[in-house]
Amino acid sequence: MAQDEREIRDWLDAWWEATRSDDVDTVLGLMADDVLFLTPGREPFGKVEFEKAARDRSVAVDGRSEVQELEIADGWAWIRTHIEVTMTAETGESHHRAGSTLSILRKEAGGRWVLARDANLLPG
Amino acid sequence: MAQDEREIRDWLDAWWEATRSDDVDTVLGLMADDVLFLTPGREPFGKVEFEKAARDRSVAVDGRSEVQELEIADGWAWIRTHIEVTMTAETGESHHRAGSTLSILRKEAGGRWVLARDANLLPG
Repeated sequence: MAQDEREIRDWLDAWWEATRSDDVDTVLGLMADDVLFLTPGREPFGKVEFEKAARDRSVAVDGRSEVQELEIADGWAWIRTHIEVTMTAETGESHHRAGSTLSILRKEAGGRWVLARDANLLPG
Repeated sequence: MAQDEREIRDWLDAWWEATRSDDVDTVLGLMADDVLFLTPGREPFGKVEFEKAARDRSVAVDGRSEVQELEIADGWAWIRTHIEVTMTAETGESHHRAGSTLSILRKEAGGRWVLARDANLLPG
């Protein structure tokens, strides 16, 4: 269990490191193929749509997640975080948002944790 | 497992039945004492704040949830739903919203499922 918790915290660090450096391939590797993202006021979307948005994005993304809760149960885990995201355009203009996430992770057959479902309550 | 799934579906039916009939006590009994509600653009809130909002409400609430996914693992469960809510004021004016939820349920020591965490992506 302690090992799983360490791996999940490492997963979250890897997510942010890859996001900050715009390493889309690595971010995609941290999610399940059937991942679903839930955001306010729109239909759930999956990996293909996430990838398109990430590759089309011209703003720089920075941010961090503080884990508020982490529970692990039989190949599944859920985490609640406080998330802060800053998006900075090439013009230098930046947009800061903060809020909560509730995410489900799944342990893949190989023993690796990946994001399965992600509810992101950040306002749009 | 099939028994747990039935109980969770019954839990959801009971939630809506009590919500429709404004039976706040029953709704409160369907959630854990440490429940947290996550909604867009505000801090997570708990049972006390839920109760105050429910008792102060002057609109009639109707709605339904369609279970899109349900996973059970070792005393925890998570469900994703498509939710529709209609709030009708005494004037007859009504407001309809639809969206997604991602919820975590926990099996209490007595064997009863209760809502533990609820991310509601409905726009405000």
